[in-house]
Amino acid sequence: MAWDVDGRRSRVMAAAVEEFAERGFSGGSTDRIAHSAGVNKERVYSYFGSKRALFGAVLSDQLNQLAQAVPLEITTRDSLAHYSGQVFDYHVNHPHLLRLLYWEALESAEDLAEASLRSAYYRSKAATIKQAQADGHVRQDLDPGQLLCTLVASCAWPLGVPGVAKMMTRHDLATPSGRRRQRAAIMAIVRAMTAPEAAAGATR
Amino acid sequence: MAWDVDGRRSRVMAAAVEEFAERGFSGGSTDRIAHSAGVNKERVYSYFGSKRALFGAVLSDQLNQLAQAVPLEITTRDSLAHYSGQVFDYHVNHPHLLRLLYWEALESAEDLAEASLRSAYYRSKAATIKQAQADGHVRQDLDPGQLLCTLVASCAWPLGVPGVAKMMTRHDLATPSGRRRQRAAIMAIVRAMTAPEAAAGATR
Repeated sequence: MAWDVDGRRSRVMAAAVEEFAERGFSGGSTDRIAHSAGVNKERVYSYFGSKRALFGAVLSDQLNQLAQAVPLEITTRDSLAHYSGQVFDYHVNHPHLLRLLYWEALESAEDLAEASLRSAYYRSKAATIKQAQADGHVRQDLDPGQLLCTLVASCAWPLGVPGVAKMMTRHDLATPSGRRRQRAAIMAIVRAMTAPEAAAGATR
Repeated sequence: MAWDVDGRRSRVMAAAVEEFAERGFSGGSTDRIAHSAGVNKERVYSYFGSKRALFGAVLSDQLNQLAQAVPLEITTRDSLAHYSGQVFDYHVNHPHLLRLLYWEALESAEDLAEASLRSAYYRSKAATIKQAQADGHVRQDLDPGQLLCTLVASCAWPLGVPGVAKMMTRHDLATPSGRRRQRAAIMAIVRAMTAPEAAAGATR
């Protein structure tokens, strides 16, 4: 962002993340975003064009940050379990991203973020899992995209609906010890789900 | 509900499900609910006390319907996989429930539904899984509550954020064939995750 010479565009993005994560797309106010960023509202529109485009830019940016913070490399049969622990940690430490994704879905605001980039991102993760299946690190009888989806679901869903999850697991995700136990449990399940030697035993 | 002699209370509930699922708790309007149910607003309050209590009653009712429609019995090692298919189908056919749960979490409206009843419901499912572990139908090395949580996550998360899930799995959940493939994939993963003979192989 060479053209963000005075940091105003970055401040608008930061304010927009807070606003949209808290109130969603419909409830989010460009007035509040502009005020919080210390710019006038016209400036917000000149940067992003529309509230809708701003929401999309915010979500894309958040997803990029996740991609850079939690790379997926599979070199052992424990790699995917460790990855799930890191994904869980990331969402714990960056709760805005899941909120934005849920708002996006609830408000039918999908395809706001740059869908082609997002799709490429997820497909590259699935391709990594497929290669790991060929390498013998991950059981081969399950679809790699589906494994990715279930792995992310096992991390994201409890954090998205922590009250429901707590009723099932008794882990209080508002506490460090509850999160620690939830993290360990997710890793154990992902290990069980992906272990290469399990596939042979499970074949009938 | 013997006291709902004229069906008005039921009509309010039905209208409230639609309104809250569409707009959430904050965005939901008791005026619109009353109008849609053909009663006056005072009647809504006389039945339920407050908008908050109405939201809680709606969510509890939806959860009760799920519990009755999809009982969990585990008599073979395929039972949990079939259960996951039924949970998936239920959410496909009753999309209001997941929307209400996500709104509840996003709007910090948790504990609105009767938490003790809900908790008992989920704990009874976990107890069923624990018994099935003792009976040899389900691998014994994973926590039953956590298995339940991941099973439900694998069904609910893709339906909650279908755009994201589609990018991972390529299954378009807006189409019958996409839902069919998603359902089969979830069942395969739940089978892999719970198979009793996998535990021995996975032990290190």
